[in-house]
Amino acid sequence: MTYCVAMRVDEGIVFLSDTRTNAGVDHVSAARKMTVFEHPGERVLVMLVAGNLALTQGVMQLLAEPASDRKTTLYNAPSMADAARVVGDAVREVHRRDAASLAEFDIDFNCSFILGGQIRGSAPRLFMVYAAGNFVEASTVSPYFQIGESKYGKPIIDRVVTPSTPLDEVAKCALVSMDSTLRSNLSVGLPLDLLVYEKDALRVTRFSTLDHDNQYFEMIHRTWGERLRQIFGEIPNPTWADPNNVPLHARDAASSVPHAPNGDPLAVQDTYASPFQTLMQPESGRSQQ
Amino acid sequence: MTYCVAMRVDEGIVFLSDTRTNAGVDHVSAARKMTVFEHPGERVLVMLVAGNLALTQGVMQLLAEPASDRKTTLYNAPSMADAARVVGDAVREVHRRDAASLAEFDIDFNCSFILGGQIRGSAPRLFMVYAAGNFVEASTVSPYFQIGESKYGKPIIDRVVTPSTPLDEVAKCALVSMDSTLRSNLSVGLPLDLLVYEKDALRVTRFSTLDHDNQYFEMIHRTWGERLRQIFGEIPNPTWADPNNVPLHARDAASSVPHAPNGDPLAVQDTYASPFQTLMQPESGRSQQ
Repeated sequence: MTYCVAMRVDEGIVFLSDTRTNAGVDHVSAARKMTVFEHPGERVLVMLVAGNLALTQGVMQLLAEPASDRKTTLYNAPSMADAARVVGDAVREVHRRDAASLAEFDIDFNCSFILGGQIRGSAPRLFMVYAAGNFVEASTVSPYFQIGESKYGKPIIDRVVTPSTPLDEVAKCALVSMDSTLRSNLSVGLPLDLLVYEKDALRVTRFSTLDHDNQYFEMIHRTWGERLRQIFGEIPNPTWADPNNVPLHARDAASSVPHAPNGDPLAVQDTYASPFQTLMQPESGRSQQ
Repeated sequence: MTYCVAMRVDEGIVFLSDTRTNAGVDHVSAARKMTVFEHPGERVLVMLVAGNLALTQGVMQLLAEPASDRKTTLYNAPSMADAARVVGDAVREVHRRDAASLAEFDIDFNCSFILGGQIRGSAPRLFMVYAAGNFVEASTVSPYFQIGESKYGKPIIDRVVTPSTPLDEVAKCALVSMDSTLRSNLSVGLPLDLLVYEKDALRVTRFSTLDHDNQYFEMIHRTWGERLRQIFGEIPNPTWADPNNVPLHARDAASSVPHAPNGDPLAVQDTYASPFQTLMQPESGRSQQ
């Protein structure tokens, strides 16, 4: 299903995408989901895609090779917001062309896009474009977008990234986020494309394709899990204290005790009315209520 | 949307559920998702539910108060698999009763169930029952089930839990898993119900409802994030090395350089044929390819 993430911070924008594509578990392949439009010194635009591969490739083809009568393209759009509209227009054109035919096969028009980058004279900006062709923009209160299989990798980003986080830490976070996703979902796979755009560089200075033999990603993959297990072990286990030391079922004597249809006495614990108070506390020995 | 998880290990089974329910963002409430059937010394059955609340409550009502002509119930099922079939039958009965009416409102028959526990004379067992009434069972290679908003909390379980993990660590893991989910999704909320079933106890010995003021969960909530940020900071950042120290765009001279429709020379980096090799390595100074 893909996992792509882009995070905009003060120092620039980090883009990361995987390359797995599938049409079912017995039809798995690889496809690039990142495309870079670079006019060194003038603009860098990066697109990440997720969803139906034929649709996303169709959109990218229109963007990379626009019709000669098209006035505004990604190559000349005056602003990043104009560029986002160009992407939206391309999505709508593919929709006009393909949506009805796909519907005859019960296939949804499923595609989503991330567009980020910088045009000379403006700040770096980051957008997410929907299948309907409209879009939203990232801000300091919401500095990242994810598309595809996004949930596994979201918690670490929420915990770690702020607008002032340095770019290399943001890249590291993107890789940890991807690693968690790779472990949990077969539809996301190596190699990965990582592009770290430095604000005001107006050219690509840091790009890498990371595969199984990339030592840095292998270090992330191995080390993050080891450290997680380590800190997990260091956090105190819960302890349980029953101050009255009374077996649980006896506590129900005061409340009505339902009986089974055959008359057997039993205790159905509908925990909404749970009468017992079992304490939990860290292994400090302190009892608390 | 709910998040419930149950994990079966050698020492017993851990059950954890939240209590948030909603019918849209302006209609949020609380409802128990755990029900315990206990006949001390003979059986402990725990059910967790997710999905449409009216459907899941309908199923639980049939299970808690079975019709008098029903031969096999959760109170007398000879085995846990029989108990799972009882649950499946109840789901199918609610389906017969309600599915068509719901469909007229375009509401899916969306519900899922976890059933776990132990009947005297057998080992603890764990099942997941689907909306169609059929079910699967957990095993040592697949020792846990999640229902509801499961993705955020899955990575930590995959990294940490094995069949030999002690029960209190499994409980801790369930709470960390729930904490990640709470942070990432508004449809999951406190308080939580936690039941730790000890193998062969045949009674409930450890149950707690954890709310904002529970010191243990508050410690998990605060500490896990702090430790994550700490180990994240301790992992080396990537460093970038360009051995030829050549500006990126100049590398493209050898390959065909597309031109914009207006003739401007530019470099469209379709990264499928990306020519440049930018190295990444841990901050050890070692260069590698």
